[in-house]
Amino acid sequence: MTQLVLVRHGQSQWNLQNRFTGWVDVDLTGEGIAQVKTAGDLLTAENITFDAGFTSYLKRAIRTLWLLLESVDRFHIPVTKDWRLNERHYGRLTGLNKQETRDKYGDQQVQVWRRSFDTPPPSVGPDNQFHPANDAKYRDIDPALLPGTESLKLTMERVLPYFESDIAPHIVAGRTLIIVAHGNSLRVLMKSLFGVSDTDIAGCELPTGNPLLIDLEDGTLNVTAARFLDESRAIGLPPHPGG
Amino acid sequence: MTQLVLVRHGQSQWNLQNRFTGWVDVDLTGEGIAQVKTAGDLLTAENITFDAGFTSYLKRAIRTLWLLLESVDRFHIPVTKDWRLNERHYGRLTGLNKQETRDKYGDQQVQVWRRSFDTPPPSVGPDNQFHPANDAKYRDIDPALLPGTESLKLTMERVLPYFESDIAPHIVAGRTLIIVAHGNSLRVLMKSLFGVSDTDIAGCELPTGNPLLIDLEDGTLNVTAARFLDESRAIGLPPHPGG
Repeated sequence: MTQLVLVRHGQSQWNLQNRFTGWVDVDLTGEGIAQVKTAGDLLTAENITFDAGFTSYLKRAIRTLWLLLESVDRFHIPVTKDWRLNERHYGRLTGLNKQETRDKYGDQQVQVWRRSFDTPPPSVGPDNQFHPANDAKYRDIDPALLPGTESLKLTMERVLPYFESDIAPHIVAGRTLIIVAHGNSLRVLMKSLFGVSDTDIAGCELPTGNPLLIDLEDGTLNVTAARFLDESRAIGLPPHPGG
Repeated sequence: MTQLVLVRHGQSQWNLQNRFTGWVDVDLTGEGIAQVKTAGDLLTAENITFDAGFTSYLKRAIRTLWLLLESVDRFHIPVTKDWRLNERHYGRLTGLNKQETRDKYGDQQVQVWRRSFDTPPPSVGPDNQFHPANDAKYRDIDPALLPGTESLKLTMERVLPYFESDIAPHIVAGRTLIIVAHGNSLRVLMKSLFGVSDTDIAGCELPTGNPLLIDLEDGTLNVTAARFLDESRAIGLPPHPGG
């Protein structure tokens, strides 16, 4: 059996303000840091340790991973940061308060943008402050790859190829990995690992800072069991082929 | 001109207790964290930023690098951790208080172990708690490479080949790097970059948590200028070929 741990970063400043965040590089709140320390205690209590870590280019995820490595005393393991694990890009919704957005566009339209599988919100142009072409972090990335908006489907189309090429081989080789990322980049990973349909994935929202421990059949990506370490903040997990 | 920044980790718990530390994985003290925050402020004030970071397998160096990346807001850059940037292994002096060691072995012998270029202290055997063969962090390293003691020369013989193969090509390519390591792993780097003799290197002790900013001629490892950012805690630097 090989273990894989997925963690959505702790509460961020814009989670707290209920704003669409996406690629904006906001930090954790004090509550977010506390959530992550609790997560670290749970990992420690279960003696879960890691051979390598993966995270995004965004500090709320990177800081979450650093705090967890500190908790389990695995400072030295290799950590790979990649923009393809970033949160979904919310296009022109970026920075807007979710209630204000509903007031402006109507509940139904906002629900479509948030929950449909393949409808992206309107795109920001390359001159917009929220376009990644204007962020020095992405200056070495092919500009043609950098999104001005994304549906969940478009998010999946960058996350999964990266997962398959750069992460999955380590799992298949039996290494225990921790992936710290974002609500939507982790949802598409769960969609793939648990075989969730395009429709059902909308109902699957990960709690912040609550490690999801997944058991996989050795040498494969076949899920045999999965549970959140903090049961008090768990969501119902989709059934999996091995369950 | 290409910039390179070398930083010795902030004060550690065993720096404070004046014990030979070497490969023992002690953490920073509160004073050490404060030193690093000051260092981060100095880097920020001079607008020094980084394309990549390198550090050892030891948490006092890794934590120092994390704090500095936070200060300069470069969470996302690639960080490589390698045991070959570890502190010199002090063999059977490991864990001993420096004054107690002088009382036991005499000033002169201790001075030889601390300051001669090529005399290692007595070695710990593979069953000793301080031998890296007994530390899970090093389980993937060829045991034949793991030292039970080191002179400065032996330290150099692992640091420099790693520097030349894995770090120097980035510098020559014009990337700005930060290397956070240890008193002796940085001394041997300075020995190489500044062309210091085997004898003179003994007098060259780096202050903790004080960034050494080195300017290099583009496309080369030729030093053209060097200074500590915290002038109040600087040491005299050896002359360099370009100076």
